[in-house]
Amino acid sequence: MTSAKLWGGRFTGATDPLMDAFNASIHFDKRLFEADVLGSQAYAKALARIGIITSQEQDLLVNGLETVLNEWQTNIFVIQPGDEDIHTANERRLGELVGNVAGKLHTGRSRNDQVATDFRIWARDESKKLLIYVKQLISATVERAEKEIDVIMPGYTHLQRAQPIRWSHWLLCYAWSWQADAQRLEEIIDRMNVLPLGSGALAGNPFNIDRELLAKELGFKNVIQNSLYGVSDRDFVAELLFWASLTMIHISRFSEDLIIYSSGEFGFVTLSDAYSTGSSLMPQKKNPDSCELLRGKSGRVFGQMSGFFMTYKGIPSTYNKDLQEDKEPLFDAVDTLAGSLQITTGVLSTLTIHPENMKKSLSIDMLATDVAEYLVRKGVPFRETHHIAGAAVRTAEEHGCTMDKLELSDFQQLHPAFSQDITEIWNFEKSIENRSSLGGTSRATVLEQIHKLKEWLNIN
Amino acid sequence: MTSAKLWGGRFTGATDPLMDAFNASIHFDKRLFEADVLGSQAYAKALARIGIITSQEQDLLVNGLETVLNEWQTNIFVIQPGDEDIHTANERRLGELVGNVAGKLHTGRSRNDQVATDFRIWARDESKKLLIYVKQLISATVERAEKEIDVIMPGYTHLQRAQPIRWSHWLLCYAWSWQADAQRLEEIIDRMNVLPLGSGALAGNPFNIDRELLAKELGFKNVIQNSLYGVSDRDFVAELLFWASLTMIHISRFSEDLIIYSSGEFGFVTLSDAYSTGSSLMPQKKNPDSCELLRGKSGRVFGQMSGFFMTYKGIPSTYNKDLQEDKEPLFDAVDTLAGSLQITTGVLSTLTIHPENMKKSLSIDMLATDVAEYLVRKGVPFRETHHIAGAAVRTAEEHGCTMDKLELSDFQQLHPAFSQDITEIWNFEKSIENRSSLGGTSRATVLEQIHKLKEWLNIN
Amino acid sequence: MTSAKLWGGRFTGATDPLMDAFNASIHFDKRLFEADVLGSQAYAKALARIGIITSQEQDLLVNGLETVLNEWQTNIFVIQPGDEDIHTANERRLGELVGNVAGKLHTGRSRNDQVATDFRIWARDESKKLLIYVKQLISATVERAEKEIDVIMPGYTHLQRAQPIRWSHWLLCYAWSWQADAQRLEEIIDRMNVLPLGSGALAGNPFNIDRELLAKELGFKNVIQNSLYGVSDRDFVAELLFWASLTMIHISRFSEDLIIYSSGEFGFVTLSDAYSTGSSLMPQKKNPDSCELLRGKSGRVFGQMSGFFMTYKGIPSTYNKDLQEDKEPLFDAVDTLAGSLQITTGVLSTLTIHPENMKKSLSIDMLATDVAEYLVRKGVPFRETHHIAGAAVRTAEEHGCTMDKLELSDFQQLHPAFSQDITEIWNFEKSIENRSSLGGTSRATVLEQIHKLKEWLNIN
Amino acid sequence: MTSAKLWGGRFTGATDPLMDAFNASIHFDKRLFEADVLGSQAYAKALARIGIITSQEQDLLVNGLETVLNEWQTNIFVIQPGDEDIHTANERRLGELVGNVAGKLHTGRSRNDQVATDFRIWARDESKKLLIYVKQLISATVERAEKEIDVIMPGYTHLQRAQPIRWSHWLLCYAWSWQADAQRLEEIIDRMNVLPLGSGALAGNPFNIDRELLAKELGFKNVIQNSLYGVSDRDFVAELLFWASLTMIHISRFSEDLIIYSSGEFGFVTLSDAYSTGSSLMPQKKNPDSCELLRGKSGRVFGQMSGFFMTYKGIPSTYNKDLQEDKEPLFDAVDTLAGSLQITTGVLSTLTIHPENMKKSLSIDMLATDVAEYLVRKGVPFRETHHIAGAAVRTAEEHGCTMDKLELSDFQQLHPAFSQDITEIWNFEKSIENRSSLGGTSRATVLEQIHKLKEWLNIN
Repeated sequence: MTSAKLWGGRFTGATDPLMDAFNASIHFDKRLFEADVLGSQAYAKALARIGIITSQEQDLLVNGLETVLNEWQTNIFVIQPGDEDIHTANERRLGELVGNVAGKLHTGRSRNDQVATDFRIWARDESKKLLIYVKQLISATVERAEKEIDVIMPGYTHLQRAQPIRWSHWLLCYAWSWQADAQRLEEIIDRMNVLPLGSGALAGNPFNIDRELLAKELGFKNVIQNSLYGVSDRDFVAELLFWASLTMIHISRFSEDLIIYSSGEFGFVTLSDAYSTGSSLMPQKKNPDSCELLRGKSGRVFGQMSGFFMTYKGIPSTYNKDLQEDKEPLFDAVDTLAGSLQITTGVLSTLTIHPENMKKSLSIDMLATDVAEYLVRKGVPFRETHHIAGAAVRTAEEHGCTMDKLELSDFQQLHPAFSQDITEIWNFEKSIENRSSLGGTSRATVLEQIHKLKEWLNIN
Repeated sequence: MTSAKLWGGRFTGATDPLMDAFNASIHFDKRLFEADVLGSQAYAKALARIGIITSQEQDLLVNGLETVLNEWQTNIFVIQPGDEDIHTANERRLGELVGNVAGKLHTGRSRNDQVATDFRIWARDESKKLLIYVKQLISATVERAEKEIDVIMPGYTHLQRAQPIRWSHWLLCYAWSWQADAQRLEEIIDRMNVLPLGSGALAGNPFNIDRELLAKELGFKNVIQNSLYGVSDRDFVAELLFWASLTMIHISRFSEDLIIYSSGEFGFVTLSDAYSTGSSLMPQKKNPDSCELLRGKSGRVFGQMSGFFMTYKGIPSTYNKDLQEDKEPLFDAVDTLAGSLQITTGVLSTLTIHPENMKKSLSIDMLATDVAEYLVRKGVPFRETHHIAGAAVRTAEEHGCTMDKLELSDFQQLHPAFSQDITEIWNFEKSIENRSSLGGTSRATVLEQIHKLKEWLNIN
Repeated sequence: MTSAKLWGGRFTGATDPLMDAFNASIHFDKRLFEADVLGSQAYAKALARIGIITSQEQDLLVNGLETVLNEWQTNIFVIQPGDEDIHTANERRLGELVGNVAGKLHTGRSRNDQVATDFRIWARDESKKLLIYVKQLISATVERAEKEIDVIMPGYTHLQRAQPIRWSHWLLCYAWSWQADAQRLEEIIDRMNVLPLGSGALAGNPFNIDRELLAKELGFKNVIQNSLYGVSDRDFVAELLFWASLTMIHISRFSEDLIIYSSGEFGFVTLSDAYSTGSSLMPQKKNPDSCELLRGKSGRVFGQMSGFFMTYKGIPSTYNKDLQEDKEPLFDAVDTLAGSLQITTGVLSTLTIHPENMKKSLSIDMLATDVAEYLVRKGVPFRETHHIAGAAVRTAEEHGCTMDKLELSDFQQLHPAFSQDITEIWNFEKSIENRSSLGGTSRATVLEQIHKLKEWLNIN
Repeated sequence: MTSAKLWGGRFTGATDPLMDAFNASIHFDKRLFEADVLGSQAYAKALARIGIITSQEQDLLVNGLETVLNEWQTNIFVIQPGDEDIHTANERRLGELVGNVAGKLHTGRSRNDQVATDFRIWARDESKKLLIYVKQLISATVERAEKEIDVIMPGYTHLQRAQPIRWSHWLLCYAWSWQADAQRLEEIIDRMNVLPLGSGALAGNPFNIDRELLAKELGFKNVIQNSLYGVSDRDFVAELLFWASLTMIHISRFSEDLIIYSSGEFGFVTLSDAYSTGSSLMPQKKNPDSCELLRGKSGRVFGQMSGFFMTYKGIPSTYNKDLQEDKEPLFDAVDTLAGSLQITTGVLSTLTIHPENMKKSLSIDMLATDVAEYLVRKGVPFRETHHIAGAAVRTAEEHGCTMDKLELSDFQQLHPAFSQDITEIWNFEKSIENRSSLGGTSRATVLEQIHKLKEWLNIN
């Protein structure tokens, strides 16, 4: 009886159990139990304030809802067959606990504004946790970058050895990506933090409910100014899913680098056993499964975003039932991000680096640009120096040696400006230190990055 | 002990519980339990055939696996903490049941070819069920079209009234879409039905296992010819997800039509109560939730496809752990399709139509094309007749009446070829019957469609 | 000679013309001509500042570049066969104009940091234009909402008539969506506005170039702090494409409403002829093509986003040639948005509304919620009143009349609290005025929205 | 006058030039010029057959259309301002050439069925070209695989060295992917090859046009059986875009492998100069740009598919203007595939392999599985042998040597079944030959693949 469908006043037709299953959302939206209780408690108080219920009724409702919350938190809440969603379930249970007064709670409220409110509370609070995970990841990156600043490795473009860089410089490249992710998330949290409650089904609240009070009670910084918009807007879902997708792309690119760097041929890093697995057939294998999963999960999160975009795009204004498809993608994306950010932090913190292999990969031809720059400093126009340095590489290849083994005369045949000091070029460390403009590879500029990120982590 | 990780021979490092959770797939791939047992039984037989195990060992394994299957089917199989995936779980349990001989089952097999085989068996068998649901849907559509062939309604382009059509013609438009879906699915089932087992981890099987026998045993029509391809190819997942997305688009367009047709303003159809819901706030509402959910689920399935595509795109050849992300999207898509196809059949079968409202929506200006065609039959070039008919519409608007109320002289001012028989034009039924070329709206051509679809349903 | 490929110093192999076509980007990136010139002029100044070139050489370069710019602006720039991209083309032309000194311009610069800089300049400046279009659209919406505030219409949920609302309230719902779009765009512009120049190919600049000066010169608010990040980061492309997709979703939902409202059955609005087209076959048709195109273009922009996401996800760190695929999607999205925003403004500004048809669509059962609320005000718990109002709707249906035609006794049979004043309920305007909480449909709260949006438009 | 908009009979309002630009499709659909002429010529013949036009008129039209076609083919066709699409342009020009009779051509035809027909003709014919490119690619792969069958290399899973394989086996893995692509494309061509012409705007043809004759004339294997379906169905676009996306994923995975294999650390392959480019800053670089572009273009094509899916999903039945967005994505995808398939063929055919580097990458621990198999052959259960082989790898690591340097006694400490013949294991070639089940790495089974693919290429 108590579990009769809330909307059952009018219908007589039999139902299709498949349709009931399709229609029901309790199996996933129960996750909103706390947000739903908080929203209802605030609403009870607001109803009392305008005299729709008495203050004793308010207390009954607020305390009853507290019991409902406790039941969820202690895992003793029992979902009944007719509980099609979390809102119905909580209200049904409240009725069992406090009797008829439960029937007053929904006065002037609709599931449309109720679910919009619950979902925003949940999304806001989960986003704040994600923000912490992002910052922890940046923190771990900066810490490692500082410790290992003297390790040098080949920098790649097009996956071809390009110029020598610091290992820390590579690490920090990702720290900056994640900092941008953190900033985006802060903006999104801020923008979603507005109250739909009081929008009713679509046309607003007819009892002069005090929405600013409701907002304050529930930690929203403002109220949504248009009731149609209040029940219809799911931009916060789209924004969070986008944020999650882009953050995962950064994690995927980071993972891709590590997968390549941990191949036998590169041998730059070894993931810790905690983040590797073996093979069921090949006993010698140690696979970077964590990184591959992170790379794969990036697709998963993009899928959640894409699916929601298509659903969201295909509806007219206000509430349409299609919007029931807004929760599962976001739940999944939030869970995936929470796991992925922490695992990335773990992978990054525990991997072993092999500086000797990195060094082995540095080849003299990676200093060809330094040869060109050498000539620039002697006054030769860059375009010319670029061709000359290319010719030097080719000459060395023809001699079957590396450039540093060429004679001065070999160089002077290419351009008269070469002199004895060309030998000073063959020094990877020096090449790295040379790039000392802001953002470059020199020790000082890398330390500067570390300094700035630390400052941001503390004060933000 | 029995639940020790299968790949644990080499590692000593501690593990991260989050990573274990990330890595584990048992919570979703347990769904493959039957396919996994079937694959292992066939493999045991093949091992016996080449003398790796004795025929008694074969019997032990096959019977033990049967017990494992029974345990799953009767819901008494207990997943243990170390059971990271269905393959590990089944093998662990088999070991408990039959002892050491279980350790021989995996000889020459890898989880790479095992999972590829299990997943194909599952996908093939589920696809066959989906094919039945599609055919049931077509069947219901054809049946209804036949019964209600005399109902006429406005046909729309751009959601503007265009020309009168039969209600059955509209229904059959979707039947043809779904027939194409059925044909696509048959092709996909055929193409996926090839055996990866015997590919090993990547390099093939070293014990001369008889793969053609394995294929026959497991109902595959052929073996995969390259072991790298065998462990790497997931085109069947991509194809099925694409199929599901496109089928859902057809269902979404059908739903969109019904949502509009069931609005108060159109009033063409009423969904049965079984496929409608009410409002928690507005007592008079009866909402076409089923259609909205179907429309929304279309986005969901597209999301599953998109996510998998991105994951699949981002990997090098052979097996990479990213591919663990292939199952959840397909499971979800298959479930969504199974539900959606049946619910669509339900919605279509049980809705009430309101022919009187359809008739009310037919307006005389929808016969403007017939006016143009009238003149064509009198020898006026079509481009000219199109302008004249447009002018007739405008004249009627200016007179504040419909075209059928204009005087013959009004028409003759537009063109001398108009004569008394113009009055025969003002007949929607006749306009419909006029379009009697193949595929047109006439009774005969609509019956022809019904005939062809029935024939296809029977013989196919 | 002048058109020799810039990277041609080393290669001897013949080329594949198809590959050259694939590799070339000049046919689309020529659009960056101005940004490229500005970036090069700033770089020339910075080179002079550190003594790599003389101040005469600086003047030669800056003036030569000005000529190049003028040639583009006056459409007389001639692209030569070897001009594979805009950077090569401009530098080639500069060389023709100023001679050898042109060969010094690229000193310490790479196409990697050059293209990242050019693209950011372009994206920033185009985004600012889009921001203006968004604000114009909001402005037009607010203006119309103010003028037509007294028009009332049915509000829909699930496309079913729900409660009466103001036409202006519906309009403003979209204004708020677009305001959020504007805020997002402002944040994105701000975040992208940082300088990559000086990052070199990947490792930074070896000549101590003054990057802060470069930033100031080019209107960037800061420099990118890590050179790898500088050449690798394309988050601004992802963000802008996301922004464009979400904004188009809002436009699509708006268009969907208008397409439905302009159907013959609704008849609420008529698009102006400027935004409609006719049919090549049916002379009476007037189709809302503009709205359909807007709805369709929403998919297009989402496609540009999706494609870029997949490309961006699949690469390791720093620059990879895959990133050449970043420009066409953004160019297309920016163009589509520029057109769509202005056309939406046009459609909205010029459409004709039919208040009499809106009124005809208001049905008495849309006041069922008001009946429930009436009883709430008499002290009956809402859940009970909701059932009673539902019963009233059913009773009226059974009597073959609307609720306002029922006798008082009919109501009193449902609940004793009904009294004579129930007749005051049957008033749509009153129902609308009742919803006077913030965000509701009442005149005052709608004016409040208008006031707030106007304030935001002025001060922002 | 001749360029007056075809639908202009009714409208008087001014137009928005932006809207005209939005609405116009001539800048891209002119590509259908030949299909449009062919469709119109066939339609003229069909009109003559049913007596709507005389046979002289037919000849006038057919010949006039031939002239129009020639003008397009010789690049002298001049698009006029009012030519909003290819159909309007061709008809306008036809009118100029043959006079009033041109106005009869559109009798009973609508742009809705006309464009659907033209687009199918174009898509079918382009698909046949793509099919040839796919087969050429397979052909090149097979040829190379045959020639280099003796080259051995490490096989990877998780990008970790797994087991030795043949280079040809790796090549053929992709050949099988592409063969599946070819089969899919053949099915799609077959399914799309049905005639919409005669569907009119939506309701069919009123003049008893002979659609089967039309189909035969235009090379269609059947007619579409429902006129609503005929103007509405764009599944062939969705299918082709899906096909293109999946084919590009295969090309992307192939490219990813090559990019990694051409890194300095792997050094397995060098792309020919024709498919590489250099760096504007670093003279020594040779970048695998072709492969990176192919990898990046994979995203592009997926984007075209995604965008179209979203557009297609969001519309009700029959023709809606949103469908104008069907052409550009398909045009772009077809062009990208045509280029990508040929460039892939070029890359594959011209790259240089470095068998000595492949050999250097083979490490003894890649034979650990062979050690386990050795014990299996001695009767030890596989699960046990897997642990023992793992222990052998660990022992070798502890001894600081490779497994082949361990003493027999070291092995016998791990299991007594080891005997002197263990030394025969340390042979990569033998390991490869061992895998001689169908699909394995042995010479015979690889030759078998080559044989089967050659057979398929010839007979198919």
